[in-house]
Amino acid sequence: MRFMEERILKDGQVRPGDILKVDSFLNHQLDVAFLDEAGKAFYEHFEGHGINKILTVEASGIALSCMAAQYFRVPILFAKKAKSRNLDNDLYTAVARSYTYGIDNTLTVSKRFLTSDDHVLILDDFLANGNAVSGLLDLCAQAGASVAGIAIAIEKGYQGGGDALRFKGYDVFSLAIIDEMNESGIRFR
Amino acid sequence: MRFMEERILKDGQVRPGDILKVDSFLNHQLDVAFLDEAGKAFYEHFEGHGINKILTVEASGIALSCMAAQYFRVPILFAKKAKSRNLDNDLYTAVARSYTYGIDNTLTVSKRFLTSDDHVLILDDFLANGNAVSGLLDLCAQAGASVAGIAIAIEKGYQGGGDALRFKGYDVFSLAIIDEMNESGIRFR
Repeated sequence: MRFMEERILKDGQVRPGDILKVDSFLNHQLDVAFLDEAGKAFYEHFEGHGINKILTVEASGIALSCMAAQYFRVPILFAKKAKSRNLDNDLYTAVARSYTYGIDNTLTVSKRFLTSDDHVLILDDFLANGNAVSGLLDLCAQAGASVAGIAIAIEKGYQGGGDALRFKGYDVFSLAIIDEMNESGIRFR
Repeated sequence: MRFMEERILKDGQVRPGDILKVDSFLNHQLDVAFLDEAGKAFYEHFEGHGINKILTVEASGIALSCMAAQYFRVPILFAKKAKSRNLDNDLYTAVARSYTYGIDNTLTVSKRFLTSDDHVLILDDFLANGNAVSGLLDLCAQAGASVAGIAIAIEKGYQGGGDALRFKGYDVFSLAIIDEMNESGIRFR
């Protein structure tokens, strides 16, 4: 069993409403030594792919990206969730529906930091239906940046977002893929 | 001149509306090797103070906290900005006015992860009037957690938040303190 699967079984909690609570180590309290292990695993999968930037979304993708970036030795760019409708002309924007909160987020990145010179690793903590990743892909397309792959801590495989991206040809690398989940247990792929 | 001051002069931009733009390395694009240097400086100041947890706020405090946590070898807890008014009973909440966006944020942390056993280092990228830090101090007080100190990347000294906290007895350690700033230049303390 892989280290992310072990940690989910040890510290994760399945809650009503299709919630997997991993806030003791991944997205509220952060176990940095554990996240470092995740960052290293991403590096081992994607090293040699010419990645020069990691693209993630605030907030919970940032910590994992920091750990990975230390191995890749590249900068991180985190997309912000727009707080106003008065956005600068110097931003790329894309809409991503949040599965957790049931709202649409407008993701923004500065045009100065994402360009056609970039070969990007997209990285996030969760992949469910794939809306956040699709928003990040949209930003890359607008900038003319190429995408080396997609690195995910926990994929909810039964929601299909990861497989849809794989079908389109993306290298989606998830440290744990959940194919079934309920309050009596979790089945990994 | 200290390394944070040098980087602000090299890559920061003063914009109208009292904005210091440092989004090329600190709070949008992230220069992880540079943030590591900041994390190490925080550690050198606060090591031996018995810190067992770093408390920050999403989103831009997370990256700096990750780097610092690798030296302190402690977990991070990042306060979330509440997205709904229907908050759980298992959360501590505090209001912090955002200087940048001119709105009130409700900061939340889970009661499970902040307790009277904790001796906390509060860490953030910016300290201006001190509202975010005050919100974090409020959360610590509710939890009965003690505060070892406050670590800041860039303090806007002329706004007085840092000195007010020092006057109350807190050990506020800032990597750069700006005492005057306009489009023709920056004066550090």
